[in-house]
Amino acid sequence: MLSQVQEAPGAGLDAFFQARGIAVIGASDDVTKIGGRPVQLLLKYGYAGAIYPINPKAGTLQGLQAYASVVDTPTAPDLAIVAVPAQATLQAVRDCAQRGVRGVVVLSTGFAEAGPEGAELQAELVRTARHHGMRLMGPNCLGVVSVPDRIVGTFSIALEQSIPPAGEVGIVSQSGNIGSFTLRNMADRGLGVSRFIATGNEADVDVADGIAALAEDPGTRIILCCMETCRHAGRLTAALEQARRRNKPVIVLKIGATEQGQAAAASHTGALTGSDAVFDAVLRRHGALRVRSFEELLDIGHAAALLAAQRLPSTDAVTLVAASGGFGIMMADAMVEAGMTLPQLSETTKALIREAVPTAGTNNPVDASAQMSARPDILLKMLTALQDDASGSTLVLMLALSLSNPRLRGVYLEALAKIRASHPDRLLVIISQGPADAVAEINALGIPVFRSIPAAATGLAGLVKLGRLASLPAAQPWRGEAGTIDPLVFRNEFHAKKALAAAGIDVPREEVVESVEAAVRAARETGYPVVLKIASEDIAHKTEVGGVALDLRDDTAVREAFARIMASARQHAPQARIDGVLVAPMVRGGVELIAGISRDPVFGSVVMVGFGGIHAEILKDVAVQVAPVSEDEAQRMIRGLRMFPLLDGARGTPRADVAAAARTVALLSEFACRHAAQVAEIDMNPILVKPQGQGVLVLDALMVPAARNTPAP
Amino acid sequence: MLSQVQEAPGAGLDAFFQARGIAVIGASDDVTKIGGRPVQLLLKYGYAGAIYPINPKAGTLQGLQAYASVVDTPTAPDLAIVAVPAQATLQAVRDCAQRGVRGVVVLSTGFAEAGPEGAELQAELVRTARHHGMRLMGPNCLGVVSVPDRIVGTFSIALEQSIPPAGEVGIVSQSGNIGSFTLRNMADRGLGVSRFIATGNEADVDVADGIAALAEDPGTRIILCCMETCRHAGRLTAALEQARRRNKPVIVLKIGATEQGQAAAASHTGALTGSDAVFDAVLRRHGALRVRSFEELLDIGHAAALLAAQRLPSTDAVTLVAASGGFGIMMADAMVEAGMTLPQLSETTKALIREAVPTAGTNNPVDASAQMSARPDILLKMLTALQDDASGSTLVLMLALSLSNPRLRGVYLEALAKIRASHPDRLLVIISQGPADAVAEINALGIPVFRSIPAAATGLAGLVKLGRLASLPAAQPWRGEAGTIDPLVFRNEFHAKKALAAAGIDVPREEVVESVEAAVRAARETGYPVVLKIASEDIAHKTEVGGVALDLRDDTAVREAFARIMASARQHAPQARIDGVLVAPMVRGGVELIAGISRDPVFGSVVMVGFGGIHAEILKDVAVQVAPVSEDEAQRMIRGLRMFPLLDGARGTPRADVAAAARTVALLSEFACRHAAQVAEIDMNPILVKPQGQGVLVLDALMVPAARNTPAP
Repeated sequence: MLSQVQEAPGAGLDAFFQARGIAVIGASDDVTKIGGRPVQLLLKYGYAGAIYPINPKAGTLQGLQAYASVVDTPTAPDLAIVAVPAQATLQAVRDCAQRGVRGVVVLSTGFAEAGPEGAELQAELVRTARHHGMRLMGPNCLGVVSVPDRIVGTFSIALEQSIPPAGEVGIVSQSGNIGSFTLRNMADRGLGVSRFIATGNEADVDVADGIAALAEDPGTRIILCCMETCRHAGRLTAALEQARRRNKPVIVLKIGATEQGQAAAASHTGALTGSDAVFDAVLRRHGALRVRSFEELLDIGHAAALLAAQRLPSTDAVTLVAASGGFGIMMADAMVEAGMTLPQLSETTKALIREAVPTAGTNNPVDASAQMSARPDILLKMLTALQDDASGSTLVLMLALSLSNPRLRGVYLEALAKIRASHPDRLLVIISQGPADAVAEINALGIPVFRSIPAAATGLAGLVKLGRLASLPAAQPWRGEAGTIDPLVFRNEFHAKKALAAAGIDVPREEVVESVEAAVRAARETGYPVVLKIASEDIAHKTEVGGVALDLRDDTAVREAFARIMASARQHAPQARIDGVLVAPMVRGGVELIAGISRDPVFGSVVMVGFGGIHAEILKDVAVQVAPVSEDEAQRMIRGLRMFPLLDGARGTPRADVAAAARTVALLSEFACRHAAQVAEIDMNPILVKPQGQGVLVLDALMVPAARNTPAP
Repeated sequence: MLSQVQEAPGAGLDAFFQARGIAVIGASDDVTKIGGRPVQLLLKYGYAGAIYPINPKAGTLQGLQAYASVVDTPTAPDLAIVAVPAQATLQAVRDCAQRGVRGVVVLSTGFAEAGPEGAELQAELVRTARHHGMRLMGPNCLGVVSVPDRIVGTFSIALEQSIPPAGEVGIVSQSGNIGSFTLRNMADRGLGVSRFIATGNEADVDVADGIAALAEDPGTRIILCCMETCRHAGRLTAALEQARRRNKPVIVLKIGATEQGQAAAASHTGALTGSDAVFDAVLRRHGALRVRSFEELLDIGHAAALLAAQRLPSTDAVTLVAASGGFGIMMADAMVEAGMTLPQLSETTKALIREAVPTAGTNNPVDASAQMSARPDILLKMLTALQDDASGSTLVLMLALSLSNPRLRGVYLEALAKIRASHPDRLLVIISQGPADAVAEINALGIPVFRSIPAAATGLAGLVKLGRLASLPAAQPWRGEAGTIDPLVFRNEFHAKKALAAAGIDVPREEVVESVEAAVRAARETGYPVVLKIASEDIAHKTEVGGVALDLRDDTAVREAFARIMASARQHAPQARIDGVLVAPMVRGGVELIAGISRDPVFGSVVMVGFGGIHAEILKDVAVQVAPVSEDEAQRMIRGLRMFPLLDGARGTPRADVAAAARTVALLSEFACRHAAQVAEIDMNPILVKPQGQGVLVLDALMVPAARNTPAP
C-alpha cells in the first residue's frame, strides 16, 4: 500500500477548511479552464482571505495580482489549489512546501488512474507532502468547499450558478461528480451545506479524513458520504466511530454492489473493492446507514437534517392518514414492505377523530376523507388527536394534489404550523409532490416532506435504522495478542478440530488410528455407533475416494470398514500421504450450520455463518462480519438468516441452542484474529446445533494456511 | 353477486364517451358543489353538445337554461351525471330511463360503501338501469372524462385548473383519487390523455368495461389501470385479452399487496380482495404489466406512450453511458439488480468510441468522460458508434446536471435530435432530473427520460416485460365439461390417488388391505421394500398415531408392522373409521415437490406448485396460477421457483424430470376444473420428481370436498 498514513483521520484538515490565504497554481483568466474556475468562484462568492493566482506570466489575472510562483506570495497561504499539468505538479508541491503551505488540493489528472508512470508520480507527490507535514487532497479530484468560509477549491459545475446556503449538511465523496450532484441537489432542496470534500485518487486525504473532519466540525450536524471503495479499513471504521461519538448521523451511498458494478469500480478507481456484503456489515456495525440509491441518500439525508439526531424516530410504528382509501392502501403496502408496523389507534383517539371528521374511517390507515381539509380547525383537531395518541407512532400524512390547490394549501399550512408548535417533539412527515415553495414552507417548520409513498416508506425505515445504529455500542477492533499454531492443523480435520477445541470450541471425541486393532479399541472407547474417515492432507473430498464409512455398529463393521477405506484410498489416491483413519462418534439430529473464515482484500479476516446443505447453498443464506465478533453480534448474524426459523422451533421442532452456536462463531472469529498471520481460511462444516441447552458440535473442519507475509488484519 | 352482467366488457360505453347531449341532475350554481362542477367544466372546456342542468328550481344555471326534470329536456341526452343525495337517485335514474338516456354516472355517495341499506338502494339502481338498457357508472365514483370530446362527467380537482391535452393515454381506476392523480401527473408531464374512467362502487360499469372500451377506442394507444379488487374475474381477463389483441399495452397498479393493505382495501371497497399472488399471476398471464407504485405506473406509462407497442425493447441488454465513472457504477448496480444484462461492445465500436472521445473507458458501463459533451459532433459520433453496435441493446445515457447548463443542454439536444433522425428504430433513454422544459424537448423526440437511475432500471425492466407479455399466446379459460367423481376420494389417500391416476397422473402401485395375510400378499406383489400406512378418512396425520411403517424388507417385517399400525391407530384414534392399511412400494431418491388446488374468492380454482419440506415452507417458495394451466405454463411456474436449481442439477445431482412434473401440475389443474363443483381443495405432497426421462410419482394426496352449492370457477 502506498499511503502508510500516521495521522488520525481528519488531522490537519483545517488547512483546507479554515485557510487564511489561498494560492491557485496554474491560475487562468479563462474561467472555463480548471485553473480559472477556482479564482473566479473565490471572488464570486466572497472569500475574505488573500487570493494568490500563480502563473508563470505573473501580471494581473481576473483583476488580481498574480505571481510567477507560490514562493513569491506576500504572505504564506494555508491552502494551494494545483491545476497545472501532471508533470508540473511535483515542482508546485515542492514550492508549496517551501512557502509553508499546509494543505494542497491537486485537481490535475494523469496520476494513478492513468497507469504505472502516473502512480509513481503520485507516490512522489505524497512523499513530498508528508515530508513537509502537508496534507494533500487528490490528485484527480474535485477538491474542497467550505461554504461558511467561502473557500471554493474546486471547478465543479455544481457551483457555477450559485453556492448553497451555509448549513449543517457535510458531504464527502470519492467521486467528484457524485459529490457535486449531491451538493447541487441539497441546495436545490433549500438545504444548507457546511463542507464538501471530493477525495479522488485519495493519495493522502481519504474519505475517512473527510468523515472525521466533518465529525469534529461544529457547523456540521449530518454527514453524507459517497464511496466506491475503501483503501484503509481501520481509518474508515475509526472515523465512523468518531462521528457516532459526536452524535452525527452518517449516511453512506456505497456503490459497486453487484459484480458488474464492482468490475466498473475496479476499473474506475484502480483499487480492490472487497466484498460488498462485508462492506455492508462494516457500515452497519460502525453506526452508518447504508443507502441503495442517490435518491435515498438525498431523501434520508434531507429528513435527517431536518430532524437532527435528537428527533430521529425511536419506533417503527406509523399512523397513516390520507383523504382517500386508495392512497391509504398504497401507504399501508409500502410501509409494511419497508418493515414498518401499523398500530391501531386507541378508542379515545378514534372517537376524537370522528368528532373532528364524522366521515373518517378510523382504522390505520386512517381514511380521513376530503372533509379533513374543509377548515384548518377541523384538520388541527384531527391532527391533535393523532399526535396525542398513546402509540407514539410517526404520523404520515398523504397530501396528493392538495398543495397545488390554493385554498387547501392554506388549510394545510395553517394546521401544520399549529400542530408543530403544540407538539414540537412528536414526529410528523408529509407525502407531497409539491409545489416546491409549499414544500419549502413545510420543511421550514422542521417537517420532512417525501415526494412519493415509496420514498416515504424507504425514508422512514432508514431514519428508524439510523436512530438504532447510533445507540449500538461502539465495535472494538481486535486487540488480542497474535498466537502461533502447529502447522499440523493444515494436515487433516483431526488436528484442525484439536486446535479449535483448544480455543474452547466443542468438537466430538476423536482419534486417528493407523491399525485395525487400534480402530476397534478407539471405537469401543468412543461408544458405538461410530464413523470412520480417511485422514490425509492430500484428500479433500473423502467420500469420492471411498474414504468414509457411517453408522458402524460393532467391531466387525469397524474392521471391515477400516480395511475397505485404506484400500480404496490407496487405489483412488495412490500419491496421497495418509495419516490413518479417524474414528469418531456417529452423531445425528440437530440442525446443521456452517461457519468459516476468509480473507477480504479490504477488511481482512471475515467470519461467515449460514445454514448447511444444498438449500442454503442455492439461497446464499449467510451472514458475514469482520472478525472478531462478540457473542451478541454472532447471535444477530444467526437471527438475521432467512432460514432462522429452522433453529427457532419451526413446525414443532425443538428450539436449537442458538447461544452455543453464537459462542462458537465468536470463538472462531477470535481464533482467526489470533492466528491471522498463519491461517488464511477456516471452514467448519457442518456444525451440529443441538436443542437448547445441549450445545453444538463441530463435526468437520478445514484450515488453509496464509501465504507467507500476509499482513495481520 | 349483485351484478349478473350479460354484456361483453365495454358494451354500451359509447354513451359515456360520445354523448350527444349531457344532463347534470342536481346541477348547482355553486361551482364548489359536486353538482356545480360538471356544468362549469363542460362549459369551461368547450363541450360541443347540449348541456342540460337539472334542478327543481329550473330557471337559469351558470348561464344555461335549467330544467326541473330530465324528462323536460328538449332533446334526449345520451348521458346523465347524477349529483343528487342518495335517496333521490332512484327517481333520477327512472327519469333518465323515461327520457331515453343511455348512460348514467352516479357521483353521489351513500350506497354499498355506507352499509346494507345503501347496498339495497344501489342494487335497485342497477336493476332499474339494466331493465331499461342503460349502463350505470358508480355510484360513489369520480365518473368519466373524454378529452377529445370535452366530456367532463366528474368533479375531480385534477381538472380544476386545466384539462390535459388530448392524447393516447387512457386511464381507468376504481379509486377516483388515484385516477385523478394519474391524470394530473400525466398532464404535468406533457402527455395527452384520451379517456378517464373512475368506477367507484362498480355497481354496473367496472374496470373490465373500462379496459375493453379503451382497447376499442382508436384514440387510445396505452391503458393505465388502478385497481384494489376485482368483482368479476372472467370479465377482467376477457378485457385484458381484448387489449392484447388490439396491441395496446396495459399497465396495472393493483394495490393491497400486503395483509395490512388488503385489510384496508376490504374495508374501503367492501369487496373480497382474493390472494395478491393470484392477482399477480392472472395479470401476467393475460398480458398486463403489474407495477408496484404510482411512480412506476407514471414512469413506465410515460415511456410506453412515447415508444408505443411497436418500439418496446425486445431485449434486456443495456449499454450504459455516463460522463463519470461513479454514475456508471451506480447504473450498472441498478440495472443488474433489475434483471437487465450488460453486453460488452464490439471491438469496432470501442475503437469508434475512442476515435470520438480519446479519454473514454469503453467497457460497459462506458465512462465517456466530460469530453463527450465538448461539441455536438463529438457526442453524435460517439452515439452513432453506440447505436450501430451489433448487440442491439438499449442505450442509456446519464446526464446528471448537464441539462441545467445552457451550453451542455445545447450540445445534448442537437446530438439527440440527429441520432433519433439517423436511428429512428434504435432505443435510447435518458436519465436526467430536468429542467422540465429540456425534458419535454427530449420527450418530443420520442426519447423517454427517467428522473433517476433506479427509476430507469425499474422502468426499462418493466418495458421489456411489457413487450414480452404482449407476445405470449392468449390464455384460454376452462372449456371442458364438468365431471362427477366418487365421494370415496375424500375418504383416504388411496382413493384420492386412484382418481388422480384415472386422470393420467402417475402414482405408485398401491393396495388397501384389511388383513395381515393380504398385506403380505400385496407386499410381495408390489416388491420389497414396502411401506405400510393406516387408511382412514378420520386420520389426517398418520405419523402422529403411529400409523406409518417405512422400509419394510420382508414378510416378517410386514406382519409385525401391520399389527403394530392397527393396534396403535385403534389406541390413539379409537373413534376413527379405519378402512385398512395401505401397502405401497418404498420409493427413494429424487427431489420432492408439492402441488395443490385451493379456491380463491375472486378467481376460483387456483393451482399451486412448490418445493416440499421445511426449507420451502419457511421460504414460501411456491408459484400459483388460476386453473387450468398448460404444461408450458406449469413449466414456467416450476422454473420460476427460487429453489429451481435443486431440479436443475445443482451440485452435481442429476437433472430432474421437470417436464413430467409440469405435466402432472397441468393434469391436476384440469382435474380441479372438471370437478370444481365437488372438490374444493387438493394436496399432493410429496410428488417425487425422478431424474430426467423417469417421470414423477405422487406419493400422497388428499382431497377436501366443496361446500354444497359452490359455483364452478
